[in-house]
Amino acid sequence: MVRIRPLLPEDWPATWHVMKPVVRAGETLPFDPSMDAEAGYAIWVEAALQAFVAVAADGRVLGTYHIKPNGPTLAAHVCNCGYVVAATARRQGIGSLMFSHSRDQALALGFRAMQFNLVVSTNTAAVQAWQRNGMAVVGTLPGAFRHQRLGFVDAHVMFKVLKGD
Amino acid sequence: MVRIRPLLPEDWPATWHVMKPVVRAGETLPFDPSMDAEAGYAIWVEAALQAFVAVAADGRVLGTYHIKPNGPTLAAHVCNCGYVVAATARRQGIGSLMFSHSRDQALALGFRAMQFNLVVSTNTAAVQAWQRNGMAVVGTLPGAFRHQRLGFVDAHVMFKVLKGD
Repeated sequence: MVRIRPLLPEDWPATWHVMKPVVRAGETLPFDPSMDAEAGYAIWVEAALQAFVAVAADGRVLGTYHIKPNGPTLAAHVCNCGYVVAATARRQGIGSLMFSHSRDQALALGFRAMQFNLVVSTNTAAVQAWQRNGMAVVGTLPGAFRHQRLGFVDAHVMFKVLKGD
Repeated sequence: MVRIRPLLPEDWPATWHVMKPVVRAGETLPFDPSMDAEAGYAIWVEAALQAFVAVAADGRVLGTYHIKPNGPTLAAHVCNCGYVVAATARRQGIGSLMFSHSRDQALALGFRAMQFNLVVSTNTAAVQAWQRNGMAVVGTLPGAFRHQRLGFVDAHVMFKVLKGD
């Protein structure tokens, strides 16, 4: 039974353990692949409005997501979220579980829509998962992501109106 | 003869005088319409990589633009720019002059592309001006801008590959 709860400072070592290989790979997240745990905490937790962890029954961290306004005041009714699932916990619906939680959380926080700014086109599993959850590709940015293995690849902007869902 | 030069701290009162009515209107820029000069400086100058002013022969500030990376490390080869033209200096090509300058500046700084994240759809003069300058609408975000007069309106994501231009 996976449950989602707020990320506490003491969860960071376990959460970073999940995120670190994804950051190092530089294939899906835009962050500096060489960044350390402290910089990761600043970007993922401190710069967000809220951060959460998905934990197994035994307390292991299986994933994490964060939510923040996508822009300043007149664009702050649209939220932006980022998600990471542990390599060992893929294809178990944890991404979709976190997405549902983030959607409810977004509505509870008063957001009207959700936007992903940079979904790497080569990350087809993610693109398809978000589409299954109602996020639409509204545009594609040519060469906008510097993939550490493939070079410059396209990225999608994805969007979903939440209000009135 | 309009010329473009780096914005110096002492240019801020004159620059804010140009920006303030645009910020207050809340129809094109996403910033808090009630923000003060100090907050404006933090957002427009300090949070940018570089900021510029367009000045008339007599030294009057007619417009301003800024440039910054659009995202963190693996998206930092795409720049983001914002432009404001004084209400008294519209339809004189100052926006296009600043755009050309920003394009050259972007290339000099090593950026490969330019992205505008939130071009308000009702600001048709801007949309058309950017299109004339080669920026393409790659996607439209439903209701992503809270227009102070019209309510929630769509905003465009615009993009232009610079490298190899």
